[in-house]
Parts: sequence; structure tokens; C-alpha cells
Amino acid sequence: MGISVAIAGATGAVGSELLLLLEERSFPVGSLRLLASERSAGREMVFAGERIPVEPLGGDSFRGVDLVFFTAGSERSREFAPAAVRSGAVVVDNSSAFRMREDVPLVVPEINPEALERHRGLVANPNCTTIVVLMAVAPLHREAGAVSLRVASYQAASGAGARAMADLEEQARAVLEGGRAEPGAFPHPLAFNLIPRIGELLDGGETGEERKLREECRKILALPGLRISALCVRVPVPRAHCAACWLETGRRLDPARAREGLAGAPGVVVVDDPAENAYPMPRTAAGTDPVQVGRIRADESSGFGLVFFVAGDQLRKGAALNAIQIAEILFGKGRN
Amino acid sequence: MGISVAIAGATGAVGSELLLLLEERSFPVGSLRLLASERSAGREMVFAGERIPVEPLGGDSFRGVDLVFFTAGSERSREFAPAAVRSGAVVVDNSSAFRMREDVPLVVPEINPEALERHRGLVANPNCTTIVVLMAVAPLHREAGAVSLRVASYQAASGAGARAMADLEEQARAVLEGGRAEPGAFPHPLAFNLIPRIGELLDGGETGEERKLREECRKILALPGLRISALCVRVPVPRAHCAACWLETGRRLDPARAREGLAGAPGVVVVDDPAENAYPMPRTAAGTDPVQVGRIRADESSGFGLVFFVAGDQLRKGAALNAIQIAEILFGKGRN
Repeated sequence: MGISVAIAGATGAVGSELLLLLEERSFPVGSLRLLASERSAGREMVFAGERIPVEPLGGDSFRGVDLVFFTAGSERSREFAPAAVRSGAVVVDNSSAFRMREDVPLVVPEINPEALERHRGLVANPNCTTIVVLMAVAPLHREAGAVSLRVASYQAASGAGARAMADLEEQARAVLEGGRAEPGAFPHPLAFNLIPRIGELLDGGETGEERKLREECRKILALPGLRISALCVRVPVPRAHCAACWLETGRRLDPARAREGLAGAPGVVVVDDPAENAYPMPRTAAGTDPVQVGRIRADESSGFGLVFFVAGDQLRKGAALNAIQIAEILFGKGRN
Repeated sequence: MGISVAIAGATGAVGSELLLLLEERSFPVGSLRLLASERSAGREMVFAGERIPVEPLGGDSFRGVDLVFFTAGSERSREFAPAAVRSGAVVVDNSSAFRMREDVPLVVPEINPEALERHRGLVANPNCTTIVVLMAVAPLHREAGAVSLRVASYQAASGAGARAMADLEEQARAVLEGGRAEPGAFPHPLAFNLIPRIGELLDGGETGEERKLREECRKILALPGLRISALCVRVPVPRAHCAACWLETGRRLDPARAREGLAGAPGVVVVDDPAENAYPMPRTAAGTDPVQVGRIRADESSGFGLVFFVAGDQLRKGAALNAIQIAEILFGKGRN
């Protein structure tokens, strides 16, 4: 029997990861439609040993489909997700198109699965940095009450898509060969560089990514007054996002207790033995499911507070894995 | 006539930069001795078109020398700097050996040149990240009074020396060729990775680098009670350090006013037009003297506060340039 699944944006970095994870997690796929732009239509992708043709995404792509993962950008989601819902499918949308709408649950299954109960056919998957940061912040908030959060991010190329990952490699190669790195997907070359702007520029000098982090954290934690400030930076790393976080809490929370709480939190792994060179890193987080938390200590610059470092695979927990976990709950196959 | 100069640690990354900058700034060098370990002795280096042999560093290296730059690590400084002072030379020490000693001025010439007046033959050059961060923080502190500072650093390979820079390149090459990156100077490969530990581990989970930043900022700003928390991270960038900074101030300081104040500060350049993709970056800071400051905006997570991003060449303002600026003041050749 199984579930009839479609992926809109199947050929992108997150789309490919969805395909891998559906198989890896034995999601009960009955049939699978792979949808993408006209440009990619005609290609084939492999799922569970079977070659599946990529079809062009259109208004009639969703007939008989139970579940659609959208990961083709906000514009495509805005254009096609409502049609998918109308045709009876449940949509898990990885874009930012609907995240802040009151009637759309924005869900990290380990944190606010209860929000799924009031969905109306559409569930939003949070921003990748939001997910990675909140996986560490939420358990600490439950323990001691979050008051303010400052986040300096170290975001991988994958957040800007498959082309950006290829660009980083291409640029690094050019520099090592003594040539000129071309910007590609970014406004400046990323190889051996840092780019402290992610997303469009907003009033007040904030970027879209920084605003997403604030608004989404507030919505997911149900803390509309949480004070959050982020500075988001692209780093020359292929696919795991990291962040340095300062979390001020309402009650005292000592680092040992925090470590204990995090060690017991689902989807989190404490990697915190810096004297033995064990701490969260892109290199060890990439390709794995859990979010790593480490370098946990008291923040001496605030009353009650902690500082720590997190790392999570942007394509897995930051995107595809979280989306599939949402679907697992929606279709009663929850593994959490 | 000129000044008789010696460089202890001449063959290292900072030593080579000192040689370049002494020439670039027309420092009145009368004679120049290049000192290094036995291993490097016998090599030749070029200064002002002249080949100069590298001699082994020893207790009798300083006869007739007026000025010694030490940049051969704390151990060498502890062993040989006192002998240099006794023999009548003035020492500018780039290591951390003497920085926190009460009788040793710790100086950033644009910030606390007055501290030089009470030197006793030895002046300490601050930690590279401290310098880069304080070049932005000090003018804002003068304007509005620093209360607390949180710093997430993005530190280049050069901070760990010339070998670390070569290792980064070697590792990137290996990864691109599908091979295995070897750790080299770091406990883990740095190419396409991040390493959130710099320096030895201290009680409370802080690293040596993080403590240096706190203690040195307090000493240079003469603010023993300043609340500072840092999380220092090595990034796969060759030679410019960056940092995301949250500065809480005692009085309101709006971003436009901060920008104006920084634009007028010596050694600082405001690069802050993110909508046009102008912001501080390692790529544009490397090889230049001024520290770049940008992404300046209000910190919505605190009462009065600012968040901003800085970038500065670790080998120049973070080390060699600052040391030479100190010497220029000591020998009356100040250009600030």
C-alpha cells in the first residue's frame, strides 16, 4: 500500500538528501514522483534501486499524491503548494514562504511536535540555522527559561544549494592553482574567505537570515518576547552549519547540569571534551543526524548564562531529516 | 646612523612580515640581525635588497642592539628577552610571556600609547585577536562606555604560524584530489572544517586564547571589571582574523553615530554597505593595514548595545604592524 510521495525540487541539494533519507529511514513510500524545473525534467534519479524520471513541476503534479515535500524555493512553494493542499496532499514546505503564517505550524519534532495537531494541510520546515541552534537551546530553555540569545553563525555552502557547494570546490581549486576564484553563487568568492551577509538586507541593517532566526526561534519556542540577536556568516565549509551561542537564562543553570540535560535530549549529542580535542565540528557533523553541542561553559558576561558551540548537518537535521521526521509523525510512523 | 634592530624569530610568519614592514614603513634601520633557532640558522633573508644571514638566537645575540622584536614563542621570550633588556636593548615582545605583568606595558598605539611612558625596557604586543577586536571596541567605548563584550572569533591559520598556513593549503589540495587531509599543525584538519578550540584548556572550560582576549582587553582599556566572554574558532582562511562582536554600552549609541566615530578613528576603516555587498572580509583585509568594521547595527537583545563584524590582517595589525608602531613611538618616529 504505502504512501504516495512527491518531492518538488528533487534535483537540488535538499531534494537529493530527501531521497537518500526516505530510503535510509524506511519511510513507507508506495509511489514516488520527482518534480523539478523544466530544465531538470527528463533526468533520472535512483530511489531504492529503481530509476525514477524527473517530471516538470506543474499545477497538475499532485493528483493522487498523499505527501509533498517542497524544496524548490519560496516562489515555487507560493505558486504550487496551495494547489497540492487543495488536491488533498499534505505539504511539508522547506521554504520560508509560509513559516510565519499563524495557520501554519512551524515544527522541529523534538521541540514542538504538538503544533502539528492544528495543521491545515501545510506544515513549514524551519530555517536550517534555526533548527541547529534550537536543538541545543530548547532543552536548556525548558530547564532554566531562555531570556536572551545571541548567535554568531558559521554557515556552510550547502545552505545556498548544490551549485554553491560546487562553486566552493571550484574556487578552492582555482586559488590553489594560482588562478582567480570566481564568485559564482555568492557575491564574493567563498573559498579561503568569509562572507558576513546571508539573505536580503532589511531595515536596520539586519539580513533576512538573521530575521528568520529571530522570528522562527520565537515561534517554535512560543516565546514571542525572547530577545535574539544574530550575525550570520557564510564560511568555506561544504555542508554542516555551526554557531556560537550565548544564552541568558532566567534561572541559574550550571554547565554540568546543562551537559546532562542535553545528553538526554533526543537528536542531540554532547561532544564536549575539548582537552581531548572533542568538540562540535563540521567535519564530524556532516553526514550524521544528531546536532552536536560542546564547549559548554558559564557566560561570565551575564547574570545567569551559558556559552556553547553547535554543529549540525545543514542538509540533514537542518532540512531533509527534519522534514521527514515531520512526515513520520503526520503519517503515524514517528520514530522519535 | 640608524637604529640597530634584531628580530628573534625572523623566519616565522610574523618575522617575515616584520622584515617587509620595516622596509615598507622606512623604519630607520641602521643594522639588522636576524635570529632564529639552530634549525633555521644559515639561511638568508632579503631586507632592502640585501641578503642577510640568519644567526642562531643566543644569550650573546644582543650586543650593540637598540631594539629587538621577539616573535619566537613564549618560551624563547622568557629565556632571552631579559638578557636583551640587560644588554641595553628595548624589547617589543609578540609572545604572551610578559603581557599581564604589571610592570610591562601592553600597547595598541591607537588606543593606549600613554602606557609606553612607563616601560622598563620591555613592551608587550597584544594577542592578534585582541588587537583586531579592540581597534573597533575602543572608539565605541570612549563614546559610550563599554559594559560587556561578547566575541565569536573566526581566526585564520596564520595565527598558528607559517606551517599552519602551508598545512591548510596542503589539506585543501588533498581533499580536492579525493585524498585524506592530515591534521598537521592542528589537532584536526582545518581545510573545509572549523576548529572551535584555540590554545590550552583552562579550568571552567575556557581556552587560553579566550582568557587572553578577556585579560588583555581589560588591561588595554584599563577596565578591570569589563565583562567579556569569547568563543574562539579557527577557520579555513589563510591570514585575516574576523570576529562577531556584541558590545553593551553604558550610554545609548546609535549605529549611525558609531559608524561616524569609527570612520574617524585611526587605523580603522568602516566597510558597511551590506546592501552593496561591502562588509569586512578576510579576502579584502589580508595584506592591508587598517582593521575593517561593518555590519554595525543595534543589538536588540540588550539595553544599549551594538553588534558588528571586524576583519584585520592577523600578521599585520594583529602582530608585526602593531609591534613596529610601538617601536616607532619608542624611537620617536611615530607616524600615528
